[in-house]
Amino acid sequence: MVADVLVVAGTHGNEVNAPWLVEQWKQQPDLILQHGLGVQTAIGNPRAFAQNRRYLDRDLNRSFQVSFLESDHRTEWEITRARELLHQFGPEGVQPCQVAIDLHSTTAAMGNCLVVYGRRPADLALAALIQAELGLPIYLHELDSAQTGFLVERWPCGLVIEVGPVPQSVLDSRIVRQTRLALETCFRALAAAMHCRGRYPRTLVVHRHLGSVDLPRDDADRQTALLHPEIQGRDWQCVQADQPLFQRASGDDCLEGLHEDAVPVFVNEAAYAEKRIAFSLTRREVVPVEDAWRDALERLIQGRA
Amino acid sequence: MVADVLVVAGTHGNEVNAPWLVEQWKQQPDLILQHGLGVQTAIGNPRAFAQNRRYLDRDLNRSFQVSFLESDHRTEWEITRARELLHQFGPEGVQPCQVAIDLHSTTAAMGNCLVVYGRRPADLALAALIQAELGLPIYLHELDSAQTGFLVERWPCGLVIEVGPVPQSVLDSRIVRQTRLALETCFRALAAAMHCRGRYPRTLVVHRHLGSVDLPRDDADRQTALLHPEIQGRDWQCVQADQPLFQRASGDDCLEGLHEDAVPVFVNEAAYAEKRIAFSLTRREVVPVEDAWRDALERLIQGRA
Repeated sequence: MVADVLVVAGTHGNEVNAPWLVEQWKQQPDLILQHGLGVQTAIGNPRAFAQNRRYLDRDLNRSFQVSFLESDHRTEWEITRARELLHQFGPEGVQPCQVAIDLHSTTAAMGNCLVVYGRRPADLALAALIQAELGLPIYLHELDSAQTGFLVERWPCGLVIEVGPVPQSVLDSRIVRQTRLALETCFRALAAAMHCRGRYPRTLVVHRHLGSVDLPRDDADRQTALLHPEIQGRDWQCVQADQPLFQRASGDDCLEGLHEDAVPVFVNEAAYAEKRIAFSLTRREVVPVEDAWRDALERLIQGRA
Repeated sequence: MVADVLVVAGTHGNEVNAPWLVEQWKQQPDLILQHGLGVQTAIGNPRAFAQNRRYLDRDLNRSFQVSFLESDHRTEWEITRARELLHQFGPEGVQPCQVAIDLHSTTAAMGNCLVVYGRRPADLALAALIQAELGLPIYLHELDSAQTGFLVERWPCGLVIEVGPVPQSVLDSRIVRQTRLALETCFRALAAAMHCRGRYPRTLVVHRHLGSVDLPRDDADRQTALLHPEIQGRDWQCVQADQPLFQRASGDDCLEGLHEDAVPVFVNEAAYAEKRIAFSLTRREVVPVEDAWRDALERLIQGRA
């Protein structure tokens, strides 16, 4: 049986552009071409969305750890909601989906990009097809024990489409357009894989997660400086090892904080302040595309997995 | 007796730049020169600030109507807080202040600007001195029965310093710098008035509030289009009467909505979505500066009012 593709909008309730797009799409099915794929849609966190908040009890997109899902003691709303989504749309769910596309926005100047968690072959194949068509940068998030439990990890294949910059709670037609473009391209890629017609590049360019950097703080845990204006808005642009990262209220550069030549992403994302992440650092890597990736994606989308 | 100047940061709890600046200023009194003025500072809405929310029960900056303040039936937190601020820092308060400067930020591309409520002579004098030095645009908010109860209206003189664009909950060194610059200029202007040395321009340029415009909606009250990308980010730039204001999810222009040649402000401010304000429209006016304005400001700041 060919399984459906799940599209989730509003996993964070104050990221309002994707939910609006999905609502418009329901009213106008031609708005986003599905290329013959079966598609299910869901508002990830409808209670948080109704309240225009990122979440109620905890970040839904950090709530999909198997240990949380299986624990009777975890009764927070978002963990309950994670179970509901899996029950309904999980690979063994009522309306089974093999692929999950999770639509996000960010206050950081990330542009239109993909986030992939770890190196599952089917995810990398899908990312490669999308990158070959649109050139989107890919943030490869892996090996960070402080950040786990992402939604798409519970589906056999999945990735995040992340678009910014846009403030939380702001509808912006450019963000809607970019989200729609990436989603259509994703469907086109999946449909190509369905018919074994995917045109893969030879290499995939990823930005591999190295770690995250907090603002400088004093003994009382207060932030003593802010992101340097030369870093603000410069996502995907390499910072040099001798470049000041922070600036004090006086306007003086702040030389605290070791770092290395690396590429910052999610620079000053509003929701990461509470996670003590001023930005994350990545390293650009070029990875050969493997035949096994294509095989994994095709088996999955053709229902042969 | 010479009364103090009150500086309020965090009237909206998720506008985080001014509170950070005020905190830094407490630790480094030289950060912002007071020019000999007595200054009191307050976090406008400390409970909302602690929760990183705009407000708890209602917008504090719409809670200063005399009828609310005097009503025993109004027990919302923000109205209670408005009473507290007046009790402590009002013109008859424990630490009396005659001037209130309320520091805000916005997701709209307003730049560094002033908001003045109505045409009180002392407010216009202060705004004229600041505009003469920095050239800041002035949004003159008046005659809108849907928007009342602003904080500064309860002090004999006061205005809002508004800086953007910055997402809610994001610290941005450029926003901090602009806020500091406007605040220092404001102090310099008040100190000049104290010593009858204010250098006034001949005219004041204001953008007078005409009204506000909501997004188009269907019968079920759902937003059917978004702000046109040609309007987004174009605060202070005149829109023509035949210019489309909105765009549908398909990318098509939306021709709904009458308007006139006017200058939009607060374009797509996140917090105004719930107020059904996609933007406000203004008209640019050039007003002769009157001697009576200067006299009113000098009397007030010299304690002769």
